[in-house]
Amino acid sequence: MAAPTLDYAKLFAKDLPAGTQSWGGFPPYNFIGGHNNPDEIPVEDLVVSSARALRQEGRALATYNMNSGPLGYTGLREFLVEKMAHYRGIQASPEEVLITSGSNHGIELLNEVLLEPGDTVIMEQFTYQGSVSRVRKHKVNIVGIPLDAEGMRMDTLASALNTLRQRGVTPKYIYTIPTLQNPTGTIMPLARRRELLRLSQEYGVPIFEDECYADLVWEGEWPPAIRALDTSNHVLHIGSFSKSLSPSMRLGYVLAPWEVLSRMLACKTDSGTGALGQLIVADFFQNHYEEHMERLRASMRRKLEALTAALTTHFGSAVEFQAPRGGMFLWVKFPEGVDTMKLAAPALKEGIAFNPGPEWATDPDAARNYLRLCYALPSEQLIAEGVAKLAQVFHREVGVP
Amino acid sequence: MAAPTLDYAKLFAKDLPAGTQSWGGFPPYNFIGGHNNPDEIPVEDLVVSSARALRQEGRALATYNMNSGPLGYTGLREFLVEKMAHYRGIQASPEEVLITSGSNHGIELLNEVLLEPGDTVIMEQFTYQGSVSRVRKHKVNIVGIPLDAEGMRMDTLASALNTLRQRGVTPKYIYTIPTLQNPTGTIMPLARRRELLRLSQEYGVPIFEDECYADLVWEGEWPPAIRALDTSNHVLHIGSFSKSLSPSMRLGYVLAPWEVLSRMLACKTDSGTGALGQLIVADFFQNHYEEHMERLRASMRRKLEALTAALTTHFGSAVEFQAPRGGMFLWVKFPEGVDTMKLAAPALKEGIAFNPGPEWATDPDAARNYLRLCYALPSEQLIAEGVAKLAQVFHREVGVP
Repeated sequence: MAAPTLDYAKLFAKDLPAGTQSWGGFPPYNFIGGHNNPDEIPVEDLVVSSARALRQEGRALATYNMNSGPLGYTGLREFLVEKMAHYRGIQASPEEVLITSGSNHGIELLNEVLLEPGDTVIMEQFTYQGSVSRVRKHKVNIVGIPLDAEGMRMDTLASALNTLRQRGVTPKYIYTIPTLQNPTGTIMPLARRRELLRLSQEYGVPIFEDECYADLVWEGEWPPAIRALDTSNHVLHIGSFSKSLSPSMRLGYVLAPWEVLSRMLACKTDSGTGALGQLIVADFFQNHYEEHMERLRASMRRKLEALTAALTTHFGSAVEFQAPRGGMFLWVKFPEGVDTMKLAAPALKEGIAFNPGPEWATDPDAARNYLRLCYALPSEQLIAEGVAKLAQVFHREVGVP
Repeated sequence: MAAPTLDYAKLFAKDLPAGTQSWGGFPPYNFIGGHNNPDEIPVEDLVVSSARALRQEGRALATYNMNSGPLGYTGLREFLVEKMAHYRGIQASPEEVLITSGSNHGIELLNEVLLEPGDTVIMEQFTYQGSVSRVRKHKVNIVGIPLDAEGMRMDTLASALNTLRQRGVTPKYIYTIPTLQNPTGTIMPLARRRELLRLSQEYGVPIFEDECYADLVWEGEWPPAIRALDTSNHVLHIGSFSKSLSPSMRLGYVLAPWEVLSRMLACKTDSGTGALGQLIVADFFQNHYEEHMERLRASMRRKLEALTAALTTHFGSAVEFQAPRGGMFLWVKFPEGVDTMKLAAPALKEGIAFNPGPEWATDPDAARNYLRLCYALPSEQLIAEGVAKLAQVFHREVGVP
């Protein structure tokens, strides 16, 4: 007799999210997800780094955290300290750096240490979806600050901080992506970084600086990180290897005062980030950072040019965008009345995936006629084809263009 | 003028755990933590596997989850399906396997899907500390079932299930480590596995089978996994690469019905487990599983022999233990009245770390005069020295031996 079957639905915790659908592969015209450029994975250099790293550190794989302690592999933290000093103007020690399993892991740990239901955080009005959704999970109020061509507006921020102070509210942090803002692509100039730091100090609110795209600036002024300007302890800084190398490696980092890091460590239950990624990436970037980034940035720039050319060809004056000076995504504005949320499903039917603007905003309504296109994964040919097909979908569904 | 300093203590969420102490390195006589044997890290084979895996799959590193979807790298899931079929008698498909960042990650995801405050789970009375602490975090009641030389006692389990039913309580799961039970080292015989499954079906309570040590049986009967005996869907099965290869790689897996896996995926926010570990370990184990495990098991056996010899030499009749037929730890009983919790600090002062029994038990009092010694990391010489020193500490502190 066959055994009875268990009905797990009766055993599940309440309020679980619906189950994930089984995986059906990527759509052919994949403009979402922050994937990187497959042509620029440095396979042979990684082979050499793997061999060297394994021969140098292989025995340490037998221990949790490779004898490096809970902050992560010492060699990778040392590389990060050098990189942040050389490229971002940051003075730090490896004891202030925590390796995380992607930068989202750092965001989650910082939120766990800082946030309680009913708290308030300040974010850019258009911002990274993963940060907004993680804050919402903590049942925290979000104050969105509008952006202009130089990033978060300081006049609005000052007045928001002042209003909150009058209501007795001290926000837990000001979250900003100052360098290649996600999704708008702006780079905050030095003067505004200084003003942001001044406001942080005046109001006693830390800045949560997300620099996960900062390796990808290919042109123009490249101001130091806000953390580089901070002579006190007001900036919590995170970064990632997803954009500079590979998102599937799941490697990110947090630079924060020990007071905060030690609490993050106490909340951490993962016994560290995977060793092979840390060992191999440390060796690779210690030897090839500048050379790899130059190639990667050049390839991204070509893809962005393909994307903006295709948008101009197929959408004409129906789209507005500010081509960024780096990064891997473009923020595109459509005429008022276009609702990109309603266009995602028809586009996906044609094999085209994009991020509707409302998912990348603290105030979804304000981003109704925007969308985000990531251009690192598809080839230049697929970019051109995908945009042509997208224009057909838009034309058919909403008469634009 | 120097900027004012932020007092983060004012911003922290309430009820955070105390900050972690900064890392001071491992103690010389390190009998804790589930580390593996550094002499048996197969460095040159891993170098070959890294090169091959990177050349085969390198481009996929540019995408999240390497084009394999959220369950993890297809090659690693395929290896696991073959390994579980060949060595554990389990019939499964890669679509039922989720790669996790260590087996604790699987435990956390299963708990997230199943547990709510006030729920009840059943565990072995002496069991893995990480499972107990994770269940406690969910504010769940734990019913501990005593063990004998064949593992969890079925008579006590049956009566506990019956008592709970009379009180209207359906436990969320029965957690067991049937193969090389942690910490007692017992291997549950086939008949008892069948009886456990029968009780699971009778009471509609899933079995949470943790087989993270099952690769390490070096002698005697090696019964199939409970999951292999289950023709319905009552067994949630997890395993690990920490014990078979390396704990710092952070690789584990869950085998569960899709109904459960899809909910675990929906709760997962890590965007997958690190790619390099998955790629390299899949290639290595596809080519070297049996050969590597034979060497590793032989080395573990020699270390266990060194440990039991040293205990007999230095503690004599003051200790009792049942040498296990595999694994990496030994559960040692001292005379009534010895409180191992009070001996941990004096031992650590002499450079010796061990796990006091109460931390490895659902009922700490029942394990007061026990401790757990992990023997995979220290050399045979360090094992002998460490046990000699431990005997001095015990003698000085409590007159035993």
